[in-house]
Amino acid sequence: MKESELTWKQLQLVRQQAPLVHNITNYVVMNSTANALLALGASPVMAHAREEVAEMAAIAKALVINIGTLSPHWVEAMEKAMTKAKSIGIPIVVDPVGAGATRYRTNSVKQLMQKNAPDIIRGNASEISALYSAEVSTKGVDSTQESHSAREAARYLASEYGCVVVVSGEVDYIISEQEEIAVYNGSALMARVTGMGCAASALTGAFAGVVEQPVEAAASAMRVMGIAGEMAAEKADGPGTLQLHFIDALYAIDKNEIEQKLKSEVDYA
Amino acid sequence: MKESELTWKQLQLVRQQAPLVHNITNYVVMNSTANALLALGASPVMAHAREEVAEMAAIAKALVINIGTLSPHWVEAMEKAMTKAKSIGIPIVVDPVGAGATRYRTNSVKQLMQKNAPDIIRGNASEISALYSAEVSTKGVDSTQESHSAREAARYLASEYGCVVVVSGEVDYIISEQEEIAVYNGSALMARVTGMGCAASALTGAFAGVVEQPVEAAASAMRVMGIAGEMAAEKADGPGTLQLHFIDALYAIDKNEIEQKLKSEVDYA
Amino acid sequence: MKESELTWKQLQLVRQQAPLVHNITNYVVMNSTANALLALGASPVMAHAREEVAEMAAIAKALVINIGTLSPHWVEAMEKAMTKAKSIGIPIVVDPVGAGATRYRTNSVKQLMQKNAPDIIRGNASEISALYSAEVSTKGVDSTQESHSAREAARYLASEYGCVVVVSGEVDYIISEQEEIAVYNGSALMARVTGMGCAASALTGAFAGVVEQPVEAAASAMRVMGIAGEMAAEKADGPGTLQLHFIDALYAIDKNEIEQKLKSEVDYA
Repeated sequence: MKESELTWKQLQLVRQQAPLVHNITNYVVMNSTANALLALGASPVMAHAREEVAEMAAIAKALVINIGTLSPHWVEAMEKAMTKAKSIGIPIVVDPVGAGATRYRTNSVKQLMQKNAPDIIRGNASEISALYSAEVSTKGVDSTQESHSAREAARYLASEYGCVVVVSGEVDYIISEQEEIAVYNGSALMARVTGMGCAASALTGAFAGVVEQPVEAAASAMRVMGIAGEMAAEKADGPGTLQLHFIDALYAIDKNEIEQKLKSEVDYA
Repeated sequence: MKESELTWKQLQLVRQQAPLVHNITNYVVMNSTANALLALGASPVMAHAREEVAEMAAIAKALVINIGTLSPHWVEAMEKAMTKAKSIGIPIVVDPVGAGATRYRTNSVKQLMQKNAPDIIRGNASEISALYSAEVSTKGVDSTQESHSAREAARYLASEYGCVVVVSGEVDYIISEQEEIAVYNGSALMARVTGMGCAASALTGAFAGVVEQPVEAAASAMRVMGIAGEMAAEKADGPGTLQLHFIDALYAIDKNEIEQKLKSEVDYA
Repeated sequence: MKESELTWKQLQLVRQQAPLVHNITNYVVMNSTANALLALGASPVMAHAREEVAEMAAIAKALVINIGTLSPHWVEAMEKAMTKAKSIGIPIVVDPVGAGATRYRTNSVKQLMQKNAPDIIRGNASEISALYSAEVSTKGVDSTQESHSAREAARYLASEYGCVVVVSGEVDYIISEQEEIAVYNGSALMARVTGMGCAASALTGAFAGVVEQPVEAAASAMRVMGIAGEMAAEKADGPGTLQLHFIDALYAIDKNEIEQKLKSEVDYA
């Protein structure tokens, strides 16, 4: 199946099934993330209390863990939710926001993933690289403090956790042990809006909730993100209006837009 | 007085008096809720620390309790604020977001309301039904696990707490022991924007802060919500732009808009 | 140098250097604040965990402390971050949101500032006045409960802490021990959008991260705020659309806009 057809088919699945996506995410993007999921056609829930996360994860189709504004109670809740997700077999998406900026972030997300391996990790180049360094340095390999390309880091993490790793940027790379997909869509203005990466992770959760293969779910999510970003940029006068048109575009995106705009390539390992 | 005249008169009271509405609400909607209250003409404050909620409630004209992202410290703060509100006689609006999804939510909100009966409860059909089941099942009536219509649940809750219950949806029902009001305004697109229900509860608080009768306050709030939603939908290209035009509409709504658009009915019991 | 030239030069510095601004701010405005900083050209980070704030402050160019939704853990984190900022010499901006509304707020912010004096305080007239009363009354001067003009309060605080104090309002006053600057820009509609004051404090942090003199940083921030607000008001239909056009304006504002619109005066003491 052509990539554009596959993406469209999977988007229709999201819209038909409206998967409940349980987000334990950061304060900054809760509103914009919920709106992105609703506009796409998914059903968002934000819940972080240790008292309820396992029960909430149990009724969800996917769990999205985002460490953007972390604190100890939240880390505990994330672990509980991830353990439940694992036990019932729903996909886990991890967004290591700000990994590398402080040891607390890097260590917290690493420990969470070591207890319950994620199905998909999505971050920008520096976050993915930071996870790699943290991962390898705990094994005593000090030389890993030197810089590695984010794609190398992603390949390592994909193999280590048996998961899919998405490196977002001007080009988005979706990397599994079997294949590497590049998505060339998007707009430079998206980097001037907070929470675009977080929205990408949440949409990835929505697709993972209705699509069997994590690599396909992640690729469809990044394609839809990029195309919606281009649709929005055509109408926007700046990052403020871009934000709203982006939500409208997630709601409006259809087969035609995907066919006309998609720029993506698949490489098999 | 005609319903449209009453609604307009009460909206003018909000704009003239700019009542301070104390919200203990969820992280997802704090920004959009504050903006909805400001646009309407009310004065919002968000404060949740156990150290200050009683003092804050004491200077407010209404208290709005929303359990959308609950945790134990917040439940304690909600109880403190509700106790203060009760003692000084300002109205309490409760929004049981996600009641029924987890026992923690259902039980927390039920216990809060049993300690301090709310003046108005506003939720969607499944939330109001969940409160009813929780309420009744604690009394040992197991058969209540079967489904009840949300309006029946609302009537039960209205009688149990001596309060007004609003069931939001395509049609909004405002239910007290004496009367039932239906509001037919609104736009389907509103369901694709997060926090519209939370905004409705907050606006209900604003009206309750300036209007004696809770049932009238709730009806005016739901009418203004629905009409502003229609005004916004006329200009919006999707849920992103709807959100902003909705805020503009709360600011702009006037006597003419209310007279031309209002579709509402009152039934006396 | 003319004030408009100075403001433009400093804005260019922000855009070239993209200073990392560490915000410990309130839940209501985290998203809108991050977007304002990104649109201006700065690099925002929001982090509040006691476990990471010192490390985060250590890589930042400015620290912005905003007490809008306070609780004890956050106060601890604020103190840690301020102590680190002080020790490494990056500027601290304090926004005493809601000071005066509850003793908890007033006392918390006062204690934070007494431990680590801020470089800039920015608040509205009632907040600045509340800090003054609190300050003075702890020294046993009971008569200070009577009202003082906010500018008098600002002069007192500027002297007490050796800092710059900004009193925002229809006219913004930037007050140091040596000079007083008035900025007449802005739009009345800005008061109907939540978080505009918080954005002003965050932008002040961005300018303070690249400009040596706090008084110049604060003046440039308030001028850019006011002019962007006017640019936005020209396009807005209400507070909803204003919010987005304001973000676009922060992104678009250039030398011409500043030269044409700036209305500001400097008085030397």
